[in-house]
Amino acid sequence: MCLVSGGLDSATCLALARRDGFECYALSFDYGQRHQLELEASARVATALGAARHLTLRIDLRAFGGSALTEDLPVPKGRSAAEMGQGIPVTYVPARNTVFLSFALAWAETLECSDIFLGVNAIDYSGYPDCRPEYIAAFERMANLATRAGVEGRTRVKIHTPLIRLSKAEIVKLGHELGLDYGLTWSCYDPSPQGRPCGACDSCLLRRKGFEEAGLADPLASVP
Amino acid sequence: MCLVSGGLDSATCLALARRDGFECYALSFDYGQRHQLELEASARVATALGAARHLTLRIDLRAFGGSALTEDLPVPKGRSAAEMGQGIPVTYVPARNTVFLSFALAWAETLECSDIFLGVNAIDYSGYPDCRPEYIAAFERMANLATRAGVEGRTRVKIHTPLIRLSKAEIVKLGHELGLDYGLTWSCYDPSPQGRPCGACDSCLLRRKGFEEAGLADPLASVP
Repeated sequence: MCLVSGGLDSATCLALARRDGFECYALSFDYGQRHQLELEASARVATALGAARHLTLRIDLRAFGGSALTEDLPVPKGRSAAEMGQGIPVTYVPARNTVFLSFALAWAETLECSDIFLGVNAIDYSGYPDCRPEYIAAFERMANLATRAGVEGRTRVKIHTPLIRLSKAEIVKLGHELGLDYGLTWSCYDPSPQGRPCGACDSCLLRRKGFEEAGLADPLASVP
Repeated sequence: MCLVSGGLDSATCLALARRDGFECYALSFDYGQRHQLELEASARVATALGAARHLTLRIDLRAFGGSALTEDLPVPKGRSAAEMGQGIPVTYVPARNTVFLSFALAWAETLECSDIFLGVNAIDYSGYPDCRPEYIAAFERMANLATRAGVEGRTRVKIHTPLIRLSKAEIVKLGHELGLDYGLTWSCYDPSPQGRPCGACDSCLLRRKGFEEAGLADPLASVP
Protein backbone atom coordinates (compact mmCIF):
# COMPACT_ATOMS: atom_id res chain seq x y z
CA MET A 1 0.00 0.00 0.00
CA CYS A 2 1.60 3.25 -1.10
CA LEU A 3 0.20 6.75 -0.73
CA VAL A 4 0.82 8.59 -4.00
CA SER A 5 0.36 12.37 -4.18
CA GLY A 6 1.90 12.87 -7.60
CA GLY A 7 4.90 14.67 -6.07
CA LEU A 8 8.48 13.52 -6.38
CA ASP A 9 8.79 12.09 -2.86
CA SER A 10 5.84 9.70 -3.14
CA ALA A 11 6.88 8.71 -6.69
CA THR A 12 10.36 7.82 -5.42
CA CYS A 13 8.81 5.93 -2.50
CA LEU A 14 6.65 3.88 -4.89
CA ALA A 15 9.68 3.16 -7.09
CA LEU A 16 11.58 1.92 -4.01
CA ALA A 17 8.71 -0.35 -2.93
CA ARG A 18 8.61 -1.81 -6.47
CA ARG A 19 12.40 -2.33 -6.45
CA ASP A 20 12.04 -4.22 -3.17
CA GLY A 21 9.60 -6.64 -4.80
CA PHE A 22 6.29 -5.44 -3.40
CA GLU A 23 3.09 -5.70 -5.42
CA CYS A 24 1.84 -2.13 -5.04
CA TYR A 25 -1.61 -0.69 -4.43
CA ALA A 26 -1.54 3.09 -4.90
CA LEU A 27 -3.91 5.39 -3.03
CA SER A 28 -4.51 9.07 -3.79
CA PHE A 29 -6.95 11.69 -2.53
CA ASP A 30 -9.02 14.37 -4.16
CA TYR A 31 -9.42 16.43 -0.98
CA GLY A 32 -10.33 19.76 -2.52
CA GLN A 33 -6.68 20.82 -2.94
CA ARG A 34 -6.07 23.87 -5.11
CA HIS A 35 -3.35 22.01 -7.02
CA GLN A 36 -5.59 19.44 -8.70
CA LEU A 37 -2.88 18.88 -11.32
CA GLU A 38 -1.24 16.55 -8.81
CA LEU A 39 -4.12 14.10 -9.29
CA GLU A 40 -3.23 13.70 -12.97
CA ALA A 41 0.39 13.25 -11.91
CA SER A 42 -0.50 10.55 -9.38
CA ALA A 43 -2.36 8.58 -12.07
CA ARG A 44 0.62 8.89 -14.45
CA VAL A 45 3.06 7.78 -11.73
CA ALA A 46 0.93 4.80 -10.60
CA THR A 47 0.56 3.60 -14.21
CA ALA A 48 4.23 4.11 -15.14
CA LEU A 49 5.40 2.24 -12.04
CA GLY A 50 3.04 -0.69 -12.59
CA ALA A 51 0.75 -0.40 -9.58
CA ALA A 52 -1.60 -3.40 -9.32
CA ARG A 53 -4.41 -0.94 -8.65
CA HIS A 54 -4.74 2.83 -8.21
CA LEU A 55 -7.64 4.31 -6.29
CA THR A 56 -8.38 8.04 -5.92
CA LEU A 57 -10.77 8.71 -3.05
CA ARG A 58 -12.77 11.89 -2.87
CA ILE A 59 -12.87 13.39 0.62
CA ASP A 60 -13.92 16.87 1.54
CA LEU A 61 -11.25 18.56 3.66
CA ARG A 62 -12.57 21.91 2.35
CA ALA A 63 -15.52 21.39 4.71
CA PHE A 64 -13.08 22.10 7.55
CA GLY A 65 -10.76 24.64 5.89
CA GLY A 66 -7.80 25.84 7.91
CA SER A 67 -5.15 25.70 5.17
CA ALA A 68 -3.96 27.71 2.17
CA LEU A 69 -4.26 24.48 0.15
CA THR A 70 -7.99 24.10 0.86
CA GLU A 71 -9.10 27.70 1.29
CA ASP A 72 -8.69 30.84 -0.77
CA LEU A 73 -5.68 32.09 1.18
CA PRO A 74 -2.45 33.22 -0.51
CA VAL A 75 0.30 30.58 -0.79
CA PRO A 76 3.59 31.98 0.63
CA LYS A 77 6.22 32.66 -2.03
CA GLY A 78 10.00 33.03 -2.07
CA ARG A 79 10.66 31.79 1.47
CA SER A 80 14.25 30.96 2.42
CA ALA A 81 15.26 27.62 3.95
CA ALA A 82 15.59 29.41 7.31
CA GLU A 83 12.05 30.75 7.04
CA MET A 84 10.73 27.29 6.12
CA GLY A 85 12.45 25.92 9.23
CA GLN A 86 10.46 28.21 11.54
CA GLY A 87 6.98 27.19 12.62
CA ILE A 88 4.15 25.59 10.70
CA PRO A 89 3.20 27.33 7.42
CA VAL A 90 -0.34 28.12 6.21
CA THR A 91 -0.04 25.37 3.60
CA TYR A 92 -0.21 22.80 6.43
CA VAL A 93 -3.52 20.91 6.12
CA PRO A 94 -4.70 19.93 9.62
CA ALA A 95 -4.24 16.22 10.28
CA ARG A 96 -3.93 15.45 6.56
CA ASN A 97 -1.40 12.63 6.84
CA THR A 98 -3.43 11.08 9.67
CA VAL A 99 -6.55 11.08 7.49
CA PHE A 100 -4.59 9.67 4.51
CA LEU A 101 -2.85 6.98 6.56
CA SER A 102 -6.16 5.98 8.16
CA PHE A 103 -7.68 5.26 4.75
CA ALA A 104 -4.50 3.42 3.73
CA LEU A 105 -4.84 1.33 6.88
CA ALA A 106 -8.49 0.57 6.07
CA TRP A 107 -7.73 -0.56 2.52
CA ALA A 108 -4.64 -2.47 3.64
CA GLU A 109 -6.67 -4.35 6.22
CA THR A 110 -9.25 -5.48 3.64
CA LEU A 111 -6.40 -6.63 1.35
CA GLU A 112 -4.59 -8.34 4.25
CA CYS A 113 -1.63 -6.16 3.41
CA SER A 114 0.69 -5.25 6.26
CA ASP A 115 3.12 -2.85 4.56
CA ILE A 116 2.19 0.81 4.11
CA PHE A 117 4.64 3.12 2.31
CA LEU A 118 4.63 6.87 2.80
CA GLY A 119 7.09 9.28 1.17
CA VAL A 120 7.36 11.73 4.06
CA ASN A 121 10.59 13.56 4.63
CA ALA A 122 11.83 15.28 7.78
CA ILE A 123 14.91 17.00 6.33
CA ASP A 124 14.02 19.25 3.37
CA TYR A 125 10.43 19.79 4.39
CA SER A 126 8.03 22.57 5.23
CA GLY A 127 7.76 22.09 8.99
CA TYR A 128 4.63 19.93 9.01
CA PRO A 129 4.20 18.06 12.33
CA ASP A 130 2.89 14.92 10.57
CA CYS A 131 6.14 14.31 8.71
CA ARG A 132 8.28 13.57 11.78
CA PRO A 133 9.64 10.12 12.74
CA GLU A 134 8.05 10.22 16.21
CA TYR A 135 4.65 10.82 14.62
CA ILE A 136 5.08 7.88 12.22
CA ALA A 137 6.11 5.57 15.09
CA ALA A 138 3.03 6.61 17.09
CA PHE A 139 0.74 6.02 14.08
CA GLU A 140 2.21 2.54 13.56
CA ARG A 141 1.66 1.65 17.20
CA MET A 142 -1.95 2.89 17.06
CA ALA A 143 -2.56 1.04 13.77
CA ASN A 144 -1.60 -2.26 15.34
CA LEU A 145 -4.14 -1.75 18.12
CA ALA A 146 -6.85 -0.47 15.74
CA THR A 147 -7.15 -3.50 13.50
CA ARG A 148 -7.50 -7.27 13.39
CA ALA A 149 -3.70 -7.45 13.51
CA GLY A 150 -3.74 -6.34 17.13
CA VAL A 151 -6.40 -8.80 18.23
CA GLU A 152 -5.79 -11.94 16.27
CA GLY A 153 -2.00 -11.82 16.32
CA ARG A 154 -1.62 -11.62 12.56
CA THR A 155 1.36 -9.98 10.90
CA ARG A 156 2.04 -6.55 12.35
CA VAL A 157 1.29 -3.44 10.31
CA LYS A 158 4.50 -1.64 9.32
CA ILE A 159 4.62 1.99 8.16
CA HIS A 160 7.62 2.31 5.81
CA THR A 161 9.08 5.80 5.38
CA PRO A 162 12.28 5.11 3.40
CA LEU A 163 12.86 8.81 2.58
CA ILE A 164 12.38 10.27 6.03
CA ARG A 165 16.08 10.90 6.73
CA LEU A 166 17.14 11.83 3.17
CA SER A 167 17.74 15.30 1.76
CA LYS A 168 15.78 16.32 -1.32
CA ALA A 169 18.98 15.95 -3.37
CA GLU A 170 19.48 12.39 -2.10
CA ILE A 171 15.85 11.58 -2.98
CA VAL A 172 16.28 12.92 -6.52
CA LYS A 173 19.52 10.96 -7.00
CA LEU A 174 17.87 7.81 -5.74
CA GLY A 175 14.92 8.16 -8.09
CA HIS A 176 17.28 8.87 -10.96
CA GLU A 177 19.21 5.65 -10.22
CA LEU A 178 15.89 3.76 -10.17
CA GLY A 179 15.08 5.11 -13.64
CA LEU A 180 12.16 7.22 -12.44
CA ASP A 181 10.98 9.91 -14.86
CA TYR A 182 10.37 12.99 -12.70
CA GLY A 183 8.65 14.61 -15.68
CA LEU A 184 5.61 12.55 -14.64
CA THR A 185 5.43 14.20 -11.23
CA TRP A 186 3.97 17.48 -10.01
CA SER A 187 5.07 19.60 -7.02
CA CYS A 188 3.71 23.16 -7.27
CA TYR A 189 1.05 24.28 -4.77
CA ASP A 190 -0.08 27.22 -6.86
CA PRO A 191 0.09 26.53 -10.61
CA SER A 192 -0.70 29.23 -13.17
CA PRO A 193 -4.02 29.04 -15.06
CA GLN A 194 -1.95 27.63 -17.94
CA GLY A 195 -0.84 24.76 -15.69
CA ARG A 196 2.78 25.88 -15.13
CA PRO A 197 4.60 25.62 -11.80
CA CYS A 198 4.84 28.99 -9.99
CA GLY A 199 8.53 28.42 -9.19
CA ALA A 200 8.28 30.28 -5.87
CA CYS A 201 6.14 28.30 -3.39
CA ASP A 202 7.89 26.14 -0.75
CA SER A 203 7.27 23.04 -2.81
CA CYS A 204 8.76 24.49 -6.03
CA LEU A 205 11.76 25.89 -4.14
CA LEU A 206 12.51 22.61 -2.35
CA ARG A 207 12.24 20.76 -5.67
CA ARG A 208 14.61 23.17 -7.43
CA LYS A 209 17.12 22.96 -4.55
CA GLY A 210 16.99 19.17 -4.72
CA PHE A 211 17.75 18.97 -8.42
CA GLU A 212 20.47 21.65 -8.18
CA GLU A 213 22.25 19.92 -5.29
CA ALA A 214 21.92 16.56 -7.05
CA GLY A 215 23.50 18.08 -10.19
CA LEU A 216 20.57 16.89 -12.31
CA ALA A 217 18.17 18.66 -14.63
CA ASP A 218 14.51 18.77 -13.68
CA PRO A 219 12.50 17.54 -16.69
CA LEU A 220 9.63 19.66 -15.37
CA ALA A 221 11.50 22.96 -15.53
CA SER A 222 9.72 25.61 -13.54
CA VAL A 223 10.97 28.54 -15.66
CA PRO A 224 8.02 30.03 -17.57
CA MET B 1 -16.04 17.67 18.91
CA CYS B 2 -18.33 14.67 19.18
CA LEU B 3 -18.70 11.80 16.73
CA VAL B 4 -22.41 11.08 16.33
CA SER B 5 -23.56 7.91 14.60
CA GLY B 6 -27.23 8.17 15.49
CA GLY B 7 -26.96 5.19 17.85
CA LEU B 8 -27.67 5.29 21.55
CA ASP B 9 -24.04 5.30 22.71
CA SER B 10 -22.99 8.38 20.75
CA ALA B 11 -26.24 10.18 21.66
CA THR B 12 -25.54 9.54 25.35
CA CYS B 13 -21.95 10.70 24.87
CA LEU B 14 -23.13 13.96 23.28
CA ALA B 15 -25.63 14.48 26.11
CA LEU B 16 -22.79 14.01 28.63
CA ALA B 17 -20.53 16.51 26.84
CA ARG B 18 -23.39 19.03 26.86
CA ARG B 19 -24.04 18.42 30.57
CA ASP B 20 -20.35 19.11 31.25
CA GLY B 21 -20.66 22.52 29.61
CA PHE B 22 -19.00 21.91 26.26
CA GLU B 23 -20.13 23.74 23.13
CA CYS B 24 -20.53 20.78 20.79
CA TYR B 25 -19.63 20.24 17.16
CA ALA B 26 -21.17 17.00 15.90
CA LEU B 27 -19.58 14.97 13.11
CA SER B 28 -21.22 12.10 11.21
CA PHE B 29 -20.27 10.03 8.18
CA ASP B 30 -22.11 8.77 5.17
CA TYR B 31 -19.65 5.96 4.45
CA GLY B 32 -21.84 3.76 2.31
CA GLN B 33 -23.32 1.90 5.30
CA ARG B 34 -26.34 -0.26 4.61
CA HIS B 35 -28.18 1.28 7.55
CA GLN B 36 -28.52 4.79 6.14
CA LEU B 37 -31.40 5.40 8.57
CA GLU B 38 -28.75 6.17 11.19
CA LEU B 39 -27.88 9.36 9.28
CA GLU B 40 -31.39 10.69 9.84
CA ALA B 41 -31.05 9.72 13.49
CA SER B 42 -27.72 11.54 13.85
CA ALA B 43 -29.26 14.75 12.48
CA ARG B 44 -32.21 14.41 14.91
CA VAL B 45 -29.87 13.81 17.86
CA ALA B 46 -27.53 16.70 17.00
CA THR B 47 -30.48 19.11 16.68
CA ALA B 48 -32.27 17.91 19.82
CA LEU B 49 -29.08 18.22 21.89
CA GLY B 50 -28.27 21.70 20.61
CA ALA B 51 -25.04 21.06 18.70
CA ALA B 52 -23.43 24.33 17.55
CA ARG B 53 -22.93 22.69 14.17
CA HIS B 54 -23.52 19.27 12.63
CA LEU B 55 -21.54 18.11 9.63
CA THR B 56 -22.10 14.86 7.72
CA LEU B 57 -19.10 13.97 5.58
CA ARG B 58 -19.41 11.63 2.64
CA ILE B 59 -16.55 9.13 2.42
CA ASP B 60 -16.47 5.99 0.37
CA LEU B 61 -15.54 3.01 2.53
CA ARG B 62 -17.43 0.82 0.00
CA ALA B 63 -14.45 1.33 -2.33
CA PHE B 64 -12.52 -0.98 0.02
CA GLY B 65 -15.30 -3.34 1.15
CA GLY B 66 -14.37 -5.94 3.74
CA SER B 67 -17.47 -5.65 5.94
CA ALA B 68 -21.09 -6.78 6.05
CA LEU B 69 -21.99 -3.12 6.65
CA THR B 70 -20.44 -1.95 3.38
CA GLU B 71 -20.81 -5.02 1.15
CA ASP B 72 -23.71 -7.23 0.24
CA LEU B 73 -22.89 -9.87 2.86
CA PRO B 74 -25.48 -11.22 5.30
CA VAL B 75 -25.57 -9.54 8.74
CA PRO B 76 -25.37 -12.21 11.50
CA LYS B 77 -28.61 -12.66 13.44
CA GLY B 78 -29.56 -14.07 16.85
CA ARG B 79 -26.04 -14.34 18.26
CA SER B 80 -25.67 -14.95 21.99
CA ALA B 81 -23.49 -12.75 24.25
CA ALA B 82 -20.93 -15.59 24.32
CA GLU B 83 -20.83 -15.71 20.51
CA MET B 84 -20.40 -11.92 20.35
CA GLY B 85 -17.48 -12.22 22.75
CA GLN B 86 -15.57 -14.51 20.38
CA GLY B 87 -13.52 -12.97 17.59
CA ILE B 88 -14.25 -10.09 15.28
CA PRO B 89 -17.60 -10.25 13.45
CA VAL B 90 -18.20 -9.55 9.75
CA THR B 91 -19.91 -6.27 10.68
CA TYR B 92 -16.51 -4.89 11.69
CA VAL B 93 -15.55 -2.15 9.20
CA PRO B 94 -11.75 -2.12 8.82
CA ALA B 95 -10.16 0.86 10.59
CA ARG B 96 -13.49 2.72 10.73
CA ASN B 97 -12.96 4.42 14.08
CA THR B 98 -9.45 5.44 13.02
CA VAL B 99 -10.82 7.07 9.86
CA PHE B 100 -13.61 8.77 11.84
CA LEU B 101 -11.30 10.00 14.60
CA SER B 102 -8.82 11.30 12.02
CA PHE B 103 -11.49 13.54 10.48
CA ALA B 104 -12.59 14.62 13.97
CA LEU B 105 -8.97 15.52 14.69
CA ALA B 106 -8.73 17.52 11.45
CA TRP B 107 -11.89 19.51 12.15
CA ALA B 108 -10.95 19.97 15.82
CA GLU B 109 -7.57 21.36 14.83
CA THR B 110 -9.10 23.98 12.53
CA LEU B 111 -11.52 24.98 15.33
CA GLU B 112 -8.70 25.02 17.92
CA CYS B 113 -10.75 22.51 19.87
CA SER B 114 -8.84 20.04 22.02
CA ASP B 115 -11.63 17.78 23.30
CA ILE B 116 -12.91 14.93 21.14
CA PHE B 117 -15.76 12.77 22.43
CA LEU B 118 -16.38 9.24 21.21
CA GLY B 119 -19.11 6.92 22.50
CA VAL B 120 -17.16 3.68 22.24
CA ASN B 121 -17.84 0.93 24.71
CA ALA B 122 -15.67 -2.04 25.62
CA ILE B 123 -18.17 -3.96 27.76
CA ASP B 124 -21.38 -4.72 25.85
CA TYR B 125 -19.81 -4.52 22.42
CA SER B 126 -19.33 -6.62 19.33
CA GLY B 127 -15.62 -7.39 19.64
CA TYR B 128 -14.32 -4.56 17.47
CA PRO B 129 -10.59 -3.89 18.04
CA ASP B 130 -11.05 -0.12 17.70
CA CYS B 131 -13.32 0.13 20.77
CA ARG B 132 -10.66 -0.85 23.34
CA PRO B 133 -9.09 1.55 25.89
CA GLU B 134 -5.54 0.70 24.74
CA TYR B 135 -6.46 1.69 21.18
CA ILE B 136 -7.95 5.02 22.33
CA ALA B 137 -4.84 5.81 24.39
CA ALA B 138 -2.61 5.08 21.36
CA PHE B 139 -4.76 7.27 19.11
CA GLU B 140 -4.57 10.16 21.59
CA ARG B 141 -0.81 9.88 21.80
CA MET B 142 -0.50 9.84 17.98
CA ALA B 143 -2.93 12.78 17.67
CA ASN B 144 -0.72 14.94 19.87
CA LEU B 145 2.27 14.27 17.62
CA ALA B 146 0.26 14.70 14.39
CA THR B 147 -0.90 18.25 14.89
CA ARG B 148 0.15 21.77 15.83
CA ALA B 149 -0.49 20.81 19.47
CA GLY B 150 2.59 18.60 19.44
CA VAL B 151 4.88 21.19 17.90
CA GLU B 152 3.82 24.49 19.32
CA GLY B 153 3.04 23.29 22.82
CA ARG B 154 -0.62 24.27 22.71
CA THR B 155 -3.29 22.51 24.77
CA ARG B 156 -3.06 18.76 24.39
CA VAL B 157 -5.69 16.88 22.42
CA LYS B 158 -7.82 14.69 24.69
CA ILE B 159 -9.97 11.79 23.45
CA HIS B 160 -12.90 11.46 25.88
CA THR B 161 -14.62 8.06 26.02
CA PRO B 162 -16.94 8.43 29.01
CA LEU B 163 -18.90 5.23 28.22
CA ILE B 164 -15.98 2.88 27.64
CA ARG B 165 -16.31 1.03 30.97
CA LEU B 166 -20.11 1.10 31.26
CA SER B 167 -22.54 -1.70 30.49
CA LYS B 168 -25.30 -1.00 27.96
CA ALA B 169 -27.79 -0.88 30.88
CA GLU B 170 -25.69 1.73 32.67
CA ILE B 171 -25.50 3.79 29.47
CA VAL B 172 -29.29 3.66 29.02
CA LYS B 173 -29.87 4.65 32.67
CA LEU B 174 -27.43 7.54 32.34
CA GLY B 175 -29.10 8.86 29.19
CA HIS B 176 -32.49 8.52 30.85
CA GLU B 177 -31.27 10.61 33.82
CA LEU B 178 -29.99 13.24 31.37
CA GLY B 179 -33.45 13.42 29.79
CA LEU B 180 -32.31 11.96 26.48
CA ASP B 181 -35.10 10.70 24.20
CA TYR B 182 -33.82 7.39 22.82
CA GLY B 183 -36.71 7.43 20.34
CA LEU B 184 -34.50 9.79 18.30
CA THR B 185 -31.75 7.20 17.95
CA TRP B 186 -31.23 4.25 15.61
CA SER B 187 -29.28 1.04 16.25
CA CYS B 188 -30.25 -1.67 13.74
CA TYR B 189 -27.67 -2.77 11.14
CA ASP B 190 -30.22 -4.38 8.88
CA PRO B 191 -33.56 -2.53 8.84
CA SER B 192 -36.55 -3.86 6.90
CA PRO B 193 -37.54 -2.12 3.65
CA GLN B 194 -40.27 -0.45 5.74
CA GLY B 195 -37.59 1.03 8.02
CA ARG B 196 -38.17 -1.19 11.08
CA PRO B 197 -35.37 -2.60 13.24
CA CYS B 198 -34.69 -6.30 12.51
CA GLY B 199 -34.56 -7.11 16.25
CA ALA B 200 -31.95 -9.83 15.73
CA CYS B 201 -28.61 -8.28 14.69
CA ASP B 202 -25.91 -7.75 17.35
CA SER B 203 -26.80 -4.08 17.60
CA CYS B 204 -30.54 -4.73 18.14
CA LEU B 205 -29.81 -7.48 20.67
CA LEU B 206 -27.36 -5.35 22.67
CA ARG B 207 -29.88 -2.51 22.68
CA ARG B 208 -32.71 -4.73 23.90
CA LYS B 209 -30.51 -6.24 26.62
CA GLY B 210 -29.54 -2.73 27.77
CA PHE B 211 -33.12 -1.54 28.14
CA GLU B 212 -34.22 -4.79 29.80
CA GLU B 213 -31.41 -4.72 32.36
CA ALA B 214 -32.02 -1.02 33.01
CA GLY B 215 -35.70 -1.77 33.63
CA LEU B 216 -36.73 0.85 31.07
CA ALA B 217 -38.92 0.72 27.97
CA ASP B 218 -37.29 1.35 24.61
CA PRO B 219 -39.32 4.04 22.81
CA LEU B 220 -38.08 2.52 19.56
CA ALA B 221 -39.60 -0.90 20.21
CA SER B 222 -38.13 -3.45 17.83
CA VAL B 223 -41.19 -5.74 17.79
CA PRO B 224 -42.78 -5.60 14.32
